[in-house]
Parts: sequence; C-alpha cells; structure tokens
Amino acid sequence: MEAAARLSMRARPASSPNPGVAALLVRDNCVVARGWTQSGGRPHAEADLFDQLEGSAKGAAFYVTLEPCAHESQRGPACAEVIAEARPARVIIGQQDPDPRTAGKGIARLKRAGIAVDVLDDAASAKSLAGYLTRRNLGRPYVTLKLAVSLDGCIALADGTSRWITGEAARAHVHTQRARNDAILVGGGTWRADKPRLDVRLPGLEARSPKRVLLTRGVAPDGVSVINQPEQIAALDGVQYLYVEGGGETAASFLREDLVDELHIYRAPILIGEGRPGIGDLGITDLPGAHGRWHLSQRGQLGSDEFTAYLRTRN
Amino acid sequence: MEAAARLSMRARPASSPNPGVAALLVRDNCVVARGWTQSGGRPHAEADLFDQLEGSAKGAAFYVTLEPCAHESQRGPACAEVIAEARPARVIIGQQDPDPRTAGKGIARLKRAGIAVDVLDDAASAKSLAGYLTRRNLGRPYVTLKLAVSLDGCIALADGTSRWITGEAARAHVHTQRARNDAILVGGGTWRADKPRLDVRLPGLEARSPKRVLLTRGVAPDGVSVINQPEQIAALDGVQYLYVEGGGETAASFLREDLVDELHIYRAPILIGEGRPGIGDLGITDLPGAHGRWHLSQRGQLGSDEFTAYLRTRN
Repeated sequence: MEAAARLSMRARPASSPNPGVAALLVRDNCVVARGWTQSGGRPHAEADLFDQLEGSAKGAAFYVTLEPCAHESQRGPACAEVIAEARPARVIIGQQDPDPRTAGKGIARLKRAGIAVDVLDDAASAKSLAGYLTRRNLGRPYVTLKLAVSLDGCIALADGTSRWITGEAARAHVHTQRARNDAILVGGGTWRADKPRLDVRLPGLEARSPKRVLLTRGVAPDGVSVINQPEQIAALDGVQYLYVEGGGETAASFLREDLVDELHIYRAPILIGEGRPGIGDLGITDLPGAHGRWHLSQRGQLGSDEFTAYLRTRN
Repeated sequence: MEAAARLSMRARPASSPNPGVAALLVRDNCVVARGWTQSGGRPHAEADLFDQLEGSAKGAAFYVTLEPCAHESQRGPACAEVIAEARPARVIIGQQDPDPRTAGKGIARLKRAGIAVDVLDDAASAKSLAGYLTRRNLGRPYVTLKLAVSLDGCIALADGTSRWITGEAARAHVHTQRARNDAILVGGGTWRADKPRLDVRLPGLEARSPKRVLLTRGVAPDGVSVINQPEQIAALDGVQYLYVEGGGETAASFLREDLVDELHIYRAPILIGEGRPGIGDLGITDLPGAHGRWHLSQRGQLGSDEFTAYLRTRN
C-alpha cells in the first residue's frame, strides 16, 4: 500500500480536480500492473491499470489508495464495476472515499461480487490524498507553510533583506514543491517587499506554475487572486493543495486559525540575531499547551541547509 | 587515530588541567594496549598505556592524539623518552603540542631514537583536544553555546516562561554536557529570572558539577564567579571547556566577539511566535557575510526534540 501511495505522487498535481489515486495489481508477490490518475482526472487509476494490464486480473490482489468510485459518468464506467468484472480475489483499499456518490458504495459493489475487501485507513494513502480528503472533510485546501530560516529562526535581516538565507539546492526544492501545489500564497508585505515571481523555475516544469494568491486588504495585482482572511482559502476554486510562503505575519495568521497541515522548514547554518522572525504573534500564553501539535515527518540535507517537515497532529 | 580520539573522551574532564590524551598500541592490525590521561593529569596517556601493556612495544605502531611530552617532571619521566626506550617501529601523532616545553621536541627525541614519526594534523584529535588547544592558541577556553529553542527559534514565551520547551531526554543530554565542561556560564537576566541550579543532576555524576560563572555587572552570588565582559573568560582559572547556557543577550555578546566555537541546538517541535529570541542583536547587516561561519558536526534525535551541533569554521 505504501508503494501505491508513493506511486500516486505521479498523479499530482495534474489529476486535479480529481484526487491523485494509484493502483497496483499483485500476483504471487509481484506487481503485474499499475496505474494512476491521469491528467485532468481521467482515466482513473483503476482504469489506467486495466489499460496497461496484459492478461487477466482474476485471482490477483488489487491495491488502491482510495475506494473505487461507484458512480458512472459520461467519461467512463464506475471503477468498482470494472474491478468487479475483472474478478480479483481481493481488493485492498487505503482510504474510504468521503464523496457521497461513492462513500461505502464502491466497497459494497465489490463485496456483492464476492470479492474480499480490506479497508485499511492507511496513513500513507491518507497523506497521498491529503488535498482531496482535506477538501472533502474540512472544506478547504491542504495547507503547507514554508519557512526558510536561519538557525535562530529569522527569515530576513531586521531591514528585510532575505536574499539569500538558504542555498541553491534548498531553493530548487522549493520550486519542486511549488510545482506540486495548486496555488501559492504570500502576504501583502512580502509581495510588496520582495516582488516574488512565485513561479516554478525548473527546466521542463515551467508549465506547472501554480495559481498565485495574495493575503491582503489591498487590491489584486494583475494575474493574482486576493483573499482578505485566511479562512477564505475555502473558496479558492480548484485548489486542493495550497503552499503558503510567508511572511511572518501571514504565517502567524494561518497558524492562529489552525489552517496549517504541514510545515516545511529550510534551515541555513547561519545566525542572524534580532532579524525578522519567521512567525509573528500566535498569542501563546501556555507553554505546555504548545506541545503535541506537530510531529516530524521528514528530514534531509539540501547542500548546507537542513530540510525538516512536520505534520499537524490531529486526532 | 579516530579510535584514539574517541578513547580520549574518557579523560575528560577529570584530566584537567592536563589535556585529555589517548594512546593506542597496534600490532598486526590489533590494538594490544591503550591508555588515556588519568584523573588530575597523571599518569599521562602514554604512561597509562605502558602500565597496561603485557609484553613489549618493540616494532609495533604507537598512536597518540597529542605529541608526547619532552619535559621531565617530578611526577614522572618525559613520555617521548619512555616511548623511545620501548622502541615501537612507528609513532603516529594526531596533533603537535603547542606547549613550548614540548613543541617539536617530543618528535625530535623519537626521531633521534630511529623511530619513524608521522604528524597528522588530525581533525578528530584536534576536536578531542579542543579545550587544551584553544587555551594554548587563543588564550581562552573552548566555548560551547547551548540553545534550547522552538522550531521558530524562541527560548521562552514573551513573558519569559521557558519551562519546558525541550523534553526530558534533551534536558538529560544537557546535563551530560555540563559534566563534560569545566564551567557553566549564564547571563545575569537568566540567573535572576530562572534561578538555575546549573549543576549536574545525573545519577553518579553529581560530583562532576562544574564551576558556575555569571556574566553580569552586578555582584557575585555565593559560590558563583562573575565576569563583566565575555573576553574575561580568558582569566577563568583552570577552565578549558566553557558551556554558555544563555539567555539571548549573553549568547549575542559571545557571538559578537567571535568567542563561540561550537553551537548546540536542542529544537522542540513546537511553535511559539513572537517569544524571546534565542540570540540577541548581532549587528549583522550583510546577509552573504553571515554565511560560511558554521558547519554541521552532529545531528540526532532526543525524544521528540532534534539535536544539532555546529562548529565554527576557522581557517
């Protein structure tokens, strides 16, 4: 299932507005076919798998990160139907689909066909579907907050200079993250001070440059959407994954509303001392209460900079 | 030589005021004897090795982290003399001794005896002798600055509350570091606010509690030494290793004078936002110039906290 969750990253972000799902067909401990949601959302991962499959799925194990859809559309038959007809021995599902058109109906259809079904509530699948599940369950995009800081947590000198704290490898990594998100957001202050292009500057990925969004009370510059409050991200059309790039006040406003699901911290081996803090006032008055909200999910080295990712711990 | 450098950690800090040296005798790729500087500085590592040795050193390879001493004392003969008489085939020396009573004379004595001598300028040996070499070369103790911070670099809430940011494992690690240092220093503000005991609270290591030093313009509390300026650490008697525990202004005053050799950062997975910064004003106005001063030397996980150590890059 973890392999399927990893595979599903290939679907992101091009599968939008559909979730990036992946499927694997396993027979005798070998993967005999795989599929993932294609650009624009179709074919679905299951259909993509059957397109690739040579031979029959009969008796094999079918792994899929999300419950197969139960609703026919003009763009193809329901995946649960297609799988039922292919007669694998077992279907292993990473996450149930909260979409009311499917929610449980895909599973029921498979069981009616006499196929064994395991529904796992698998963490890797949930992570790979974070944008879709957050949209469905919380009615807003999945939000990643990025910070590029010194060892002492500053994002700029006191005068605002921020070029550069992190090195080239870290900055290239940021561009791959931009390419994976549907929209990038910065605050009005950062927009005016840094004039950021907020595009993807990686060879071959320029076309992946996401929608640009500004958090401001001011007017919208050309080609940029504006919201006045963090909560308004709920209304950002077609945005399942939102990448918030700062500055400190914008970061704080999202954190205060508990709208950050993932933290990405790029930390350069420099000290600034009384520079601009990465995160503005959070109104925290209780230190024990600040604990238990974040857990490490990833750590790596990018040139001389350290990359750490943390996930919001939600129960 | 790295094994010898690791072994020498056993000498620290009890060997004070002598450097914590280690020696290994190797024959046919096997370590046949080892020694390290004993409590109070004698026996030296070389003499300790010969005390353990069964049989002869003749023809073997003798590894030692620091050049063997060339000066006889009332407490024993010169180590270079003792080694010369034992007639190993080769002596491999991690670092030359800057002590004018030895500096090169130990090496010369061995060569005169027809023994091959390699002097390596070995980094692991230098690190293991940091307190001694810094005292000799820069006339001051080797300084480690400790920070216990949130992900956004705060050492306390805005109101000063700092109990606790890091967890038990990190705090126990701090106590092992205290036990390895000859003195601990905090600023007057931290002293008054936190009333820190600055002792070693680890079973069996209570006796290792180091000297306590306060950086303040005020008067000295009972049992505590006082300095008014960071530079005055040079005059701290018998202190080769100094552990600076904050607060932010004290950290900044040491950093401004380039008196920090090693940074120890304990980072808890919490966000504070507009708390007390770990490091006060450093007067940095040039961001490119802030780079290249620190490099990662160690990284680990202590419960949910991350530990990273950085060394000052000096050419």
